[in-house]
Amino acid sequence: MQFISEQRLDDDILEREFTLGEVPGVLWTPGSASAPAPLILIGHPGGLDKMYPRLIARARHSVAEGFAAATIELPGSGDRPRSAAAEQVRADLHRVLRAGEPVTDDIVDRLVLPLVDQAVPEWRAVLDALLALPEIGGPVGYSGGVISIGTRLAAVEPRIVAAVLFAGSFVPRAIFEEARQVTIPLHVLLQWDDERNDRQMALDLFDAFGSKEKTLHANMGGHTGVPQFAGEEANRFFARHLK
Amino acid sequence: MQFISEQRLDDDILEREFTLGEVPGVLWTPGSASAPAPLILIGHPGGLDKMYPRLIARARHSVAEGFAAATIELPGSGDRPRSAAAEQVRADLHRVLRAGEPVTDDIVDRLVLPLVDQAVPEWRAVLDALLALPEIGGPVGYSGGVISIGTRLAAVEPRIVAAVLFAGSFVPRAIFEEARQVTIPLHVLLQWDDERNDRQMALDLFDAFGSKEKTLHANMGGHTGVPQFAGEEANRFFARHLK
Repeated sequence: MQFISEQRLDDDILEREFTLGEVPGVLWTPGSASAPAPLILIGHPGGLDKMYPRLIARARHSVAEGFAAATIELPGSGDRPRSAAAEQVRADLHRVLRAGEPVTDDIVDRLVLPLVDQAVPEWRAVLDALLALPEIGGPVGYSGGVISIGTRLAAVEPRIVAAVLFAGSFVPRAIFEEARQVTIPLHVLLQWDDERNDRQMALDLFDAFGSKEKTLHANMGGHTGVPQFAGEEANRFFARHLK
Repeated sequence: MQFISEQRLDDDILEREFTLGEVPGVLWTPGSASAPAPLILIGHPGGLDKMYPRLIARARHSVAEGFAAATIELPGSGDRPRSAAAEQVRADLHRVLRAGEPVTDDIVDRLVLPLVDQAVPEWRAVLDALLALPEIGGPVGYSGGVISIGTRLAAVEPRIVAAVLFAGSFVPRAIFEEARQVTIPLHVLLQWDDERNDRQMALDLFDAFGSKEKTLHANMGGHTGVPQFAGEEANRFFARHLK
């Protein structure tokens, strides 16, 4: 892991950009921490630059609560190289959406599974590197979308002990099977009127998770309209499980 | 309203039993309040004595947050007279449940609508009496089941400005129409695996509410297994809207 920039934000947060191999990311830590901090991995739908305002807002909340926070770019987003297969399935998706046709399992699988297959090992490699830093301890939480990435990470990565998952993207059938393997506490956010979300699919996925403690918080509004109080409740979920 | 008993509980809560006409109830207020307190009406499925441990726990939370809290007995529960019609429909319900037959709309209507028709005016009369007390101000919240009672109260009683509703009982189709008239902020609790609850019906009712701010919190466990953190989130909802 190579740090490529470092700046101290005005509320005493240390923001460092890094790369791990070809994966760029950002790490936020308390500027004046003493003990190693628990860590929240901040997931997002891709495009670090575009997402930055929302990511930094979430990171500020996390750091204010005594956590370190980190995010990485998704495969094929931002400045990372596009794959021909990913470009093709996006074109297929846009075509069926424009035509008002149903989004087939084949499109969802081709859209999401390669992303999950590539992103999850990247998150785990970044986790290795982050936990080797003296200022970061554990435990570790995952927060965010893509919900299929969060689901597989929650199922396979034993260092992640709690997750806040954002419903709101296509979920392959294979991920429902992986959801049954998840046992860590989950806090699932669902925007009830999300125009980009299949509500019934989100409820079915919530039902599929194997965790004994799982909570669904559904709120009104569209994809980006998560109310402030819902964000605060997600923070309290992490405070309960990571401290 | 006649107070018939008064005791000071160990954490400086004043507990007073009262009657209003033939309706018994309990009022809990801060023992050393200065300003008139906002009020939370605590709903329940009937049977004040049987429910007392859970009611006093909820009342303690409310009073600790600076609220007054009150509850009344439901028609036909506890020491209140049973109606022949209510006894008949309960017998009908138990018969179809034992036989594994579907619970018809007719049974649900006969079970719930007369209860709502009688309980809602009683709650409103108690609200008149409580708000006349100098130690109680407003605004007013309603918390609890029976969700059909809470729905109609939220729809028709303008002094109730926010409600926490517990999914978990039969809901007549007519109440779905009333739900569309509700505009106040709602916080709906759903026990995902509630053996006495029709999950899909609860989700449909949540969808039907007309409120712009409505939140569904679904948690694991059965009818009485609402986790402590879910109760605390409901308290914070009232703190946001009643203070």
